[in-house]
Parts: sequence; C-alpha cells; structure tokens
Amino acid sequence: MPVRDEQGVQTVELPPPSLRDNTADVERLRGTLERRLNAKRVDVDLAAAADLPALLRDNKYRVRCIVFGAGNRWQLGAVMADDDQPVLGLAVDLGTSRVVLSLVDLTSGRVLGEDALDNPQLTIGPDILTRIHYSETGDGLAELQNMVIAGLNYRIATLCRKRATSPERIFLMSLAGNTAMTHLFLGLTPRWMIREPYIPVINRPGLLGARELGLRLNPTARLFVFPNIGSYFGGDLIAGILHSGLHRREAIAILVDVGTNAEVVLGNRDWLVACAGAAGPALEGGVSKIGMMACPGAIDRVTIDPYTRQFELHTIDDQPPVGICGSGVIDLAAQLYRAGMIDIRGQLVPETCNGRLVAGPHGPALEIVPSPAGSNREGLAIGQAEFDSLVRSKAAMYTILETITGAVGIAPGELETFFVAGTFGTFIDPESAITIGMLPDLPRECYRPLGNSSLEGAKKILTDPGLLAQVDAIRDRITYMELNVNQDFMNRFSAAKFLPHTNPELFPSVVPGDGALGA
Amino acid sequence: MPVRDEQGVQTVELPPPSLRDNTADVERLRGTLERRLNAKRVDVDLAAAADLPALLRDNKYRVRCIVFGAGNRWQLGAVMADDDQPVLGLAVDLGTSRVVLSLVDLTSGRVLGEDALDNPQLTIGPDILTRIHYSETGDGLAELQNMVIAGLNYRIATLCRKRATSPERIFLMSLAGNTAMTHLFLGLTPRWMIREPYIPVINRPGLLGARELGLRLNPTARLFVFPNIGSYFGGDLIAGILHSGLHRREAIAILVDVGTNAEVVLGNRDWLVACAGAAGPALEGGVSKIGMMACPGAIDRVTIDPYTRQFELHTIDDQPPVGICGSGVIDLAAQLYRAGMIDIRGQLVPETCNGRLVAGPHGPALEIVPSPAGSNREGLAIGQAEFDSLVRSKAAMYTILETITGAVGIAPGELETFFVAGTFGTFIDPESAITIGMLPDLPRECYRPLGNSSLEGAKKILTDPGLLAQVDAIRDRITYMELNVNQDFMNRFSAAKFLPHTNPELFPSVVPGDGALGA
Repeated sequence: MPVRDEQGVQTVELPPPSLRDNTADVERLRGTLERRLNAKRVDVDLAAAADLPALLRDNKYRVRCIVFGAGNRWQLGAVMADDDQPVLGLAVDLGTSRVVLSLVDLTSGRVLGEDALDNPQLTIGPDILTRIHYSETGDGLAELQNMVIAGLNYRIATLCRKRATSPERIFLMSLAGNTAMTHLFLGLTPRWMIREPYIPVINRPGLLGARELGLRLNPTARLFVFPNIGSYFGGDLIAGILHSGLHRREAIAILVDVGTNAEVVLGNRDWLVACAGAAGPALEGGVSKIGMMACPGAIDRVTIDPYTRQFELHTIDDQPPVGICGSGVIDLAAQLYRAGMIDIRGQLVPETCNGRLVAGPHGPALEIVPSPAGSNREGLAIGQAEFDSLVRSKAAMYTILETITGAVGIAPGELETFFVAGTFGTFIDPESAITIGMLPDLPRECYRPLGNSSLEGAKKILTDPGLLAQVDAIRDRITYMELNVNQDFMNRFSAAKFLPHTNPELFPSVVPGDGALGA
Repeated sequence: MPVRDEQGVQTVELPPPSLRDNTADVERLRGTLERRLNAKRVDVDLAAAADLPALLRDNKYRVRCIVFGAGNRWQLGAVMADDDQPVLGLAVDLGTSRVVLSLVDLTSGRVLGEDALDNPQLTIGPDILTRIHYSETGDGLAELQNMVIAGLNYRIATLCRKRATSPERIFLMSLAGNTAMTHLFLGLTPRWMIREPYIPVINRPGLLGARELGLRLNPTARLFVFPNIGSYFGGDLIAGILHSGLHRREAIAILVDVGTNAEVVLGNRDWLVACAGAAGPALEGGVSKIGMMACPGAIDRVTIDPYTRQFELHTIDDQPPVGICGSGVIDLAAQLYRAGMIDIRGQLVPETCNGRLVAGPHGPALEIVPSPAGSNREGLAIGQAEFDSLVRSKAAMYTILETITGAVGIAPGELETFFVAGTFGTFIDPESAITIGMLPDLPRECYRPLGNSSLEGAKKILTDPGLLAQVDAIRDRITYMELNVNQDFMNRFSAAKFLPHTNPELFPSVVPGDGALGA
C-alpha cells in the first residue's frame, strides 16, 4: 500500500539494492516515484543526485521527496530525511500595486501566515506603462526585476522569522501575476507587449529554479509561474479561474476582473472564451486628483439619503477622508443617481445638487467632503468630467460583457453565476454596480466575490501540484477573442452610456430614485 | 518545405506575429521546432527566452537553433542569427588513463581537430580503485572532479585556438566514459560502486548544462553524458555499441572491451545481453615491473622465429625498449608458445629457453631484452609468475565469453562478427590472442577492431542527436548478467587455463609450434 501524502511531499520507502537489483540510487528513487505518481518520467537534477547516496543509506532507504509536476512529467526538488522539520511552500500574488505572500505548510495544506508589500516598482511608476517604458532604458529591466526580487526576499525572510522558521524550508513557490508583472519578475522584456501586435516573450514560463532568479529559498526550490494567454490576459486570471472552478462546472458562468483593464472569461467545463478591454481608470479610483487606491482614508462606501440627500461616508480604517477609491466612486454614482442628483446621462442636476455644487477648474464640481471649517485643508470634490469618465468606463465594462456573451449566443442577464475576481472586485457593491449599469441586473446572489483569487489559485497549486495539468488545460482551452471595436461595438457602447442603460428593460430591478423622478 | 539541416542545428523561419496570432515569442519558436522535429515538447530555458525578442525581430524571424534531444522531448540550447559563424560540438572519450577530445562542426559533421591528454587524475593514482578511495577523503571528490574539468577546459581552449575558433562556439558536448570516471566527472561519489552490492549514484545522467559543471563552453551549451548499466558496464561501452551498430544488425554479434576488466555485450537488433568480469591486469600490460601502458618505448609486437628462436621486437615510435604493453605481452606469449618456449600450461620450457633464462627475484625469468653491453641499464625480463598471471587472465576472458554465449545457447565459435572495442583492443593481434586461447578460434576476418569506439559513439551523437533515443533504447534493452562465479564457471576456467585450451578441438587453427612439439 503506498503511503498517502499530499501530492507535493511524498514519503517513499525504496527497496534496498542487492546483487540482483543493482539499479543506481537516482533511478531507484525515480522508479519508485514514477510508479507512485503514475508518471512517465520524474526528472532529477545533479544537485539532488549528489546528496542521494548518503541520504538513502543513512535513512534506510526511507526519505521524503518534494515533487512538482503534472501528468507524465514531474521534477524532483529536494530529498530529505523523513523527520518532523516543516516543509513549506510560498504562494505569491504579484500585483501591479500590491504583492501578497502566503506561507503554506505543504504537508497539511495549512496557511502559516500571510503578508503583503507594496510592489517596490511603484517607485518607478504606479502604472504598468511607465514601468514598461523604464524597462527599455539602460539597465531598467534588470533594475525592475531586482526591485521585486529583493522586496520579496526581504518580506519572505520576515514572514519566516515571525513563524519561527527559515526560507531554507521553502521548497516550492507559485506565482501569479498579470503578464507585464510576470515578465518584469522573470527579467523578460515587456517591450513588445505594448506595441502592435502586442506579443509577450513567453506564454508558459512553467517550472523554474527559484535560485536562478535570485530568490533566497531552499537552493533546490522550484517556482511555478502561472501562464498567460497574451499581453492582456495574465496568470492572475488563470489562477482565478482555477480558484473559481469555473472550468469544471456544467453551467455557464462568467469571471470578471474589474479594473482599468477589464478581463473577462466565460464558459464551463467544455469551453472557455476570454477577452480583455480597456474600461478606463475610473473604475479603479483613478478618475481625478481625489481618486486613489484602497488605502486608509479612502472613501469606500457612500450612502445618500434619497429624501434629505444627506451623505454618509465610510473610509477605510475609519480615517479622515483623503480621497475616494474605485468602489467608493461606483457607490457614489449609484447613490447620486438614486437621489436624483445625477441624471441618466450622468450629468449633475443643479436643482438637486443644490448647496454642494462648487466651481471646479473645469466647470461645476460636486463637493463630497467640505473643507473643514477653520482649516486650510481643501475639501473633496468631483467634477462633471470625472462623472463622464465613469460613465464611459462603466459603459465599456458592460459593452465588453454584452459582446462576449453575445459571441456565444446568450444575454448577460441569462448568467447564473458571476464571479468577481481580484481584491478590488471584492469591494464593489453589486447593488451599486448594477444601479449604474456597469454589471448586468442579475439576482444579487448570483454575484460571487472571489477575494484575492490570484493568490488563492497560487495557494491551491502548492498543495496539489497535480493541478498543474489543469492549469495547462485551462490555458490551452481558452479561446481568446480580440475585442473588435467596430461599429456594432460602438453602437452598444453608446447605448450603455446611460444610467443604467438606454434600454431600461435590461435593468428591471433598477428604479430611478425619487430625486431623479422629481428632477 | 522545411529547410533540411543537420538535426542538431535547425534553421527556422517563423510566421511573424499578428493581431490574429499573438502567440508569444518563446511559444512561437517552440511550436515551429516541435512541428519540425515532430516532438511533443521542446523545452526552452529562461536564458534563451530573454534574448529571443530582439533576436527574432532583428533577424526577421529567421534564426538558427541548437537543439538536443530525442523522440518526444527536446531542449533548445542557443538561438542565434543565421550567419556563417561556426557551430561546434565536442565529443569526449573520458578514459581512466587518456582523455580524447574531438572538435566537430555541427552543420557539416566534419571533424575539425582532435587532441588528447593524460587523465589529470593519474597524479592521484593510475587505477580506478585508488581514485575512488581518494574521493572518499576530505575534499577528494571535488578535487578529482576539478582536475578533470580544469584539464578539459585547458585542452579545449588550446584545441579551439589551433583551429582559429573559440570555446564560445561550442554548443553541444557529448561524453562517454566508464561508470567510475563518469561519476568523478559529475562530482558524484563512486563510493558505493566498490562495495557490495556495487551501486552507482546514477544510471542516466542525460542532458546537463555544461556551465553548471564548470565547463567553459558557450554558456548555453548542453552536455550529454552516456548512460551506464551498472558500476562495471559504463557509458563508454554504450557509446561503443552505438558506434558498432551491433544493436541494429540481424545476425548475432559480440562486442568485447578487453582490459583489466573485460566487458562483453552479445546480441542483435532484438536483444542484448551484457556482462563484465575481472580479467586481470595482465591483459593491459600491468603484469610486472616491465609491464606498461602503450607509450613510446613499449614493446607492442613480438615475433619469434620458431626455428632459430630469434626475437624480433617492435616498440612504439621505434624508441629503445623500456617495457612491454598489453598487446606485446599477448604477442610474446603466442610466439613463445609457437616456438615451444612455453608449454600448454604456460610454463617456461628450460630446454628451448636456453640462453634466455635468468634468475629473477621469484625464480627463473625469461630475458626479452638483454642488458645493453657495457651499460648499467638492466635488461627486460618476464618471470614465470607473470606468465601464470597472463594465463589466468586469458582464461578468465575466454571463460567469460563462453559463459555469456552459453547463456544464450551458442558456442563462442559460432559468432560471425566479433567487435573488439577500445584503443587497447585495436592493438591486439587476433592471431596471437587466438593462439593463446584468449579469444575464440574464429576466421580472422570476423574480428573487427573498432578503434576508440567510445569517442566514435560520442561523435556520432553530436551530429545526429536523434540517436539519443537509440542510446536510451540500447541501455534499456541490455540484460545485464551478473557473472556467477560458481562451480561450473570454475570448471570452465580451469579448462581454459591451458594454451590454447584443454580441448584443442575448440582451436582447430592453432597448431603448437615445432618447439613445443619437440619439447
């Protein structure tokens, strides 16, 4: 009876060699692992081979092996005595803004700790484009790579110290990120990703040696980097699909990562279609000088009493408001619409905005937070131009959803499950997003926020490396639809530029607020 | 139409990317190579990936690729512009005493130059056992490894300079050696090879990065190390089989590497049986203080006039005789037997040796070269004990041949082709070897000396890496027979301890010399 282990950590007992069975140490171990994993081949590198003879004989041919792979092909990472030292893995979500780490016990699957850091490349520029341009200058690429590797090394060491362990005990790492972040991490130029026809260097980085990238883990540690299907559909999404299980369900579902770029995948266990398109920075709080990331002090929830038109603002960590993040902007627009303070075109209604309209640099603006009395601090206000931008963003988002569902012959309203991926998606209130017509008018329970689905996917693969085969299958099964911005798309887009839509039948649950009715 | 190349160097032209085909650079190249090579997978490492975007675009998607692999799995080594720079490979025969290098143009298959060096480990000890013991002390293993790597690096650089090229242009290397030499080269302990049950660390080292071993070639260079089937049947033999083509012939043939250790493989395209056994140092000239390797001044050919009993000696490079090498010892014994100067038990016959018998430290000895008149230099003499040792060695060799052929139900005399592998084998005169009953009494044209078959096999694989699959198939098809030294073996051995054999019917072409008849 084979010992049952988590797939990544295999405790094996080899038949000792004899005159009748003089198979070498490496092939003896490989043979046993190949039978155990039902694999055609387990690759063993020279470093593991060198330690094997003493290890096998000192431990009476009973050892623990770290293996990584899928299907026919596996790699042996480390071999060690079958003792009670921890065997750890590290999952990383490499975001453009935040990098999140999760330390996992590979034998129990338990998460030992999580930590996060700002992506150190933020010092070069907050957006991807700035970093890509920087990577094209001098040693820019190596510099950007080193920044993120050094940041990771430091944070990994800290996290391990807190958990009374050492990076030396990390034998596997998985990393999911968008295609640009992944390229910078690997030291591969993203130069051709932003120039027609938008070509990445690599689609499937696969299994790499963590050491060759300068990661300070166990020297034998292997790193799995999630594959991408193009410059605009990255490994974070593939990890998200893995986490959602969308690719294994019978019913059709959709997964959407809402952001400056909207990435969408639609399908079930038989097929997967994906597309990505620019939705505009408005959805990520990048609308104006008061737009900001979801940091302490960002307004993330807005309620407006439709009768008194009193504002109730919630900020992250209950700090004094310093700006408004993406989910706050969506909330704000929905609440303003319900209160009749913006109309179906997203125009501020002077009558109902009475008392909050101030003169902005580009015309009238709506004051959200007044300048504190007796203070020099400015208040927070959003101008009409920003609302226009939001309307364009939400219209783009909806049009992308209409286009991809239309391509497979269904309407957005027919979806039964709607996964919202990514940390940002988690904070969007579907009620608000539906009210402004950004997301389709589905029963609210259809919406399933996935949290940090990229990290969750990366964690999943650590304790079940057999899923590597599923990741490959997901990637290969996705039909990527290049969004064709043609007349038909523009017509749909124009129709979506109303709150919630020119065709109110598409949003039966959305009733314009009394204010709007009264306007 | 695919461009026709030598398999290891592929010139490919990729379809340029477009909005409709946004496959990444690495996968675009891989896909084309996979179709070209009919391979399931071509692995590309990160170093090659990093250079690819500029290389593809600068060269309008037409590049030369160095690939290495077989069957389903290939590896991409380097990618380069399709210019007229040479693309070289290096084949190495790693012998216990000599290391031979051959520099090969991978596109034409032409040998550009060869060179050889004494195995630098000779300073530790001439024999394998001494080196294995040394490898078990302190840094002995690393020291032995460094010796051979440093020696190779130096000699490679010299050879390249002579040919007006650089080691940077070497992209592939193949190496064949016995199991112990291969282990020392790879830095793997041979400790368990000399202790029951005689287990090597690895059977199939496969494809390695030349750089990780410290070899100074092109940084992307791959190294193929021939596999072994045990401690006593190494990659040199597998390379020899590949070179001989024995594994693809319909008729049964045998391949023998004669030496201190006799390695034998018997078979045809359907099956292969191998065994190895100690034949004793006598066959390699290691019989006495006058025994020596085949170096200048070694007696390598002996003719004795059966009537006058005059000796005619030939030395390597026609230098004054300083010793006798293996082929010389076999010649000498055969000629002495034909001249009746030793009898069928290998005993010196005082009557016929008259005038050449001198007193040795352990009884009578036969003077081969008298002390030069008026000189202090000693003559060269071989004692009875040495002849006894030779008889035991040749008997062991013959018994091994009888045993392996017997195991498959044929007699040694039924063989139609008898390959003699290795440099040493090349110098043996089959006539002499048959006369003393070391090799079976086959028509002389059945004997086929293969020269440095290990080097030839290593060269072959450089320009036709598809042969890797054949190498694996050869290794896997060999049934290794542990020589069971039982009563039956001892009976055969005793019968073989006569010149040529107790059963003269086995050696019909050998007629005892007049001297022997007259004795």
